Amino acid sequence: MDNFSFYTPTRYKFGRGVENMVGEMARNEGWRTVLIIYGGGSAIRSGLLEKVCTSLSQAGVSFVTFGGIKPNPTDGPVREAIGMCRRCNPDGIIAVGGGSVIDTAKAVAAGFYHDGDFWDFFAGKAPVEKALPIGVVLTIPAAGSEGSGNAVITNTETGQKISIRTEFVLRPVFSLLDPELTYTLPAAQTAAGIADMMAHIMERYFTTTEGVEVTDRLAEGLLMAIMDQAKVVMAEPENYDARANIMWSGTLAHNGICGCGRREDWGSHGLEHVLSAEYGVTHGAGLAVVFPAWMTFMASHKPAKVAQLGQRVFGIPADLSPEKGALETATKFRGFFKSLGLPTTLGELGIEGADFGYLTRCFLRDKGNPFKGYMTLGPEEVEAIYRLMV
Amino acid sequence: MDNFSFYTPTRYKFGRGVENMVGEMARNEGWRTVLIIYGGGSAIRSGLLEKVCTSLSQAGVSFVTFGGIKPNPTDGPVREAIGMCRRCNPDGIIAVGGGSVIDTAKAVAAGFYHDGDFWDFFAGKAPVEKALPIGVVLTIPAAGSEGSGNAVITNTETGQKISIRTEFVLRPVFSLLDPELTYTLPAAQTAAGIADMMAHIMERYFTTTEGVEVTDRLAEGLLMAIMDQAKVVMAEPENYDARANIMWSGTLAHNGICGCGRREDWGSHGLEHVLSAEYGVTHGAGLAVVFPAWMTFMASHKPAKVAQLGQRVFGIPADLSPEKGALETATKFRGFFKSLGLPTTLGELGIEGADFGYLTRCFLRDKGNPFKGYMTLGPEEVEAIYRLMV
Repeated sequence: MDNFSFYTPTRYKFGRGVENMVGEMARNEGWRTVLIIYGGGSAIRSGLLEKVCTSLSQAGVSFVTFGGIKPNPTDGPVREAIGMCRRCNPDGIIAVGGGSVIDTAKAVAAGFYHDGDFWDFFAGKAPVEKALPIGVVLTIPAAGSEGSGNAVITNTETGQKISIRTEFVLRPVFSLLDPELTYTLPAAQTAAGIADMMAHIMERYFTTTEGVEVTDRLAEGLLMAIMDQAKVVMAEPENYDARANIMWSGTLAHNGICGCGRREDWGSHGLEHVLSAEYGVTHGAGLAVVFPAWMTFMASHKPAKVAQLGQRVFGIPADLSPEKGALETATKFRGFFKSLGLPTTLGELGIEGADFGYLTRCFLRDKGNPFKGYMTLGPEEVEAIYRLMV
Repeated sequence: MDNFSFYTPTRYKFGRGVENMVGEMARNEGWRTVLIIYGGGSAIRSGLLEKVCTSLSQAGVSFVTFGGIKPNPTDGPVREAIGMCRRCNPDGIIAVGGGSVIDTAKAVAAGFYHDGDFWDFFAGKAPVEKALPIGVVLTIPAAGSEGSGNAVITNTETGQKISIRTEFVLRPVFSLLDPELTYTLPAAQTAAGIADMMAHIMERYFTTTEGVEVTDRLAEGLLMAIMDQAKVVMAEPENYDARANIMWSGTLAHNGICGCGRREDWGSHGLEHVLSAEYGVTHGAGLAVVFPAWMTFMASHKPAKVAQLGQRVFGIPADLSPEKGALETATKFRGFFKSLGLPTTLGELGIEGADFGYLTRCFLRDKGNPFKGYMTLGPEEVEAIYRLMV
């Protein structure tokens, strides 16, 4: 096990109606004025934005709003919202939405204090050392941004989708998680969110660090719980307990608890970010294509940990060779993603005639060449993985 | 799943040599003077206390020391240390030791601000609303107090061993966990610590709350990791990875992550606290006697969750009746505790001719009559469980 730091100072309130605590939580933080960032019309149509505004008003917290954040959030709205922040000088930001909204809020929160352009953080030119505090009202269990110190933004000019990571500066100070807010999510979005949270766990699971049984077991347990509850949620979208299990799993998948003391991979996320940046596909749907292909590649190159996962999560017999065990694991995950109605090939993702050489160059540009993860990947390996997605 | 709050703002530093960060951590908290609380001679003999003092001195943090805390810590030293705090007015308390030292530090930290006697908190006469901040250098993985908001103190006058629980006021602000500090723990103490952390998980596992798959799976995963690594640690006391897995498991077992959204039991702890208060037995050793007896009782009264645990953790066949499955689970746990050299009967614990009626009355006095946990327990049930420990 590697040495590690772990600090997760987010106050979680979880359950029915917790969104109505947003005013009280903001006031307890000492906030007098906040910027509310939200997405499209669903927060308005569902009445959630109204609830948030009412709660803040009743607590005596004033606000300005900034809507229109789209999936795979981009740099333009971040700059606009930073400008708005500089005019109204809020004490905090309330993100009402899923990962795209929260990640935008994080980029704004850090950019507010930065003299140059906020993209400096994502280009690796400046570290995030200070940020406005953020509160979250979560509507989509997927990205885990409600508990993480991470953010992902796409630069429309360069076509790069880049993530940044802080130990705690970008962790929300509070996150309000009401499973009932997720009842009306379309099935495709629920499924993509499930693939996303599973990917967050697996990126941590596939490690070169030895002697990490406790985090291995946490990761396996979370994956089993998610797959079990995913079935229920897809069949009964208004099953409270299943929605609750999925929602809390999404937070635990990415708050760092599964990564303590181990080097992580994040190659599959990099492979997917290229697809999202190039073709605008839904992140979770892209991951459902990427992960089985990545596992299939690993079966013939570095099967041990993939086979272990399959044994423990799917009960794949331990007496299979590691290669066969890993292949069977890939098949099981592919089957699971299919059962949720997710795509598992580039074709099903709507991508035909991809230029694999180009995708490979994009990946290595963003992640380093060679990419050093669970296995070191150069151009040949990366292209081979992309080709397995066909 | 029940609604819940979760807030764990402890900064963890984990790994080789992190005890040398204590000065830097204290200074970062803005502390200028601290009270160091420690246990017996081992912190002196091992040189750990010296390291802590040197680190604080180099960081410009002055200190006073208060040693001599014993296992099953009592009220007397708490009052003495509160008096010392009032004379030297520290900015924080550094606990160097295991659960007994940390729990004493917590009682002192809260008592410092309380006008009456600190036992008011334990007698349920006053809530803990404010406490001096605490930093921890952990030497024994067992109690989980380094990450919890809880504390347990024994009142020597009344013979009561009582625990209190806060959501976050008594959580340490930082905890430094170096697995190498645990290399020299005697085997019996290592084993008792393992039983203690397992009990912390199982007290949360045995719940009346339905629909809590994610925390079920986390608990099962932790238990499997602990039992796997326990074997290694007992055979190779200086195996770093195994010590590290056990140490971090002990923290996760009790920081609340396994209890989110579920009612907890804590009946077995209550049964053991009576034994510790009456006979001075080691808490973890007592739990190794209590838990298999409790499970055996549940096999014929409420077997479902016990049987589920056995299926998932020990692979006990799912086609056994719940009663047989639960009995088999009790047998497996008893066997595991025996394999660590722990006692599994009152006789092996050195208790002969116990007055079961008296023990039962003590339990119901401390925990309420009837005790409402996974199963509601009146005098008859409690006495039956004690009798199964013979």
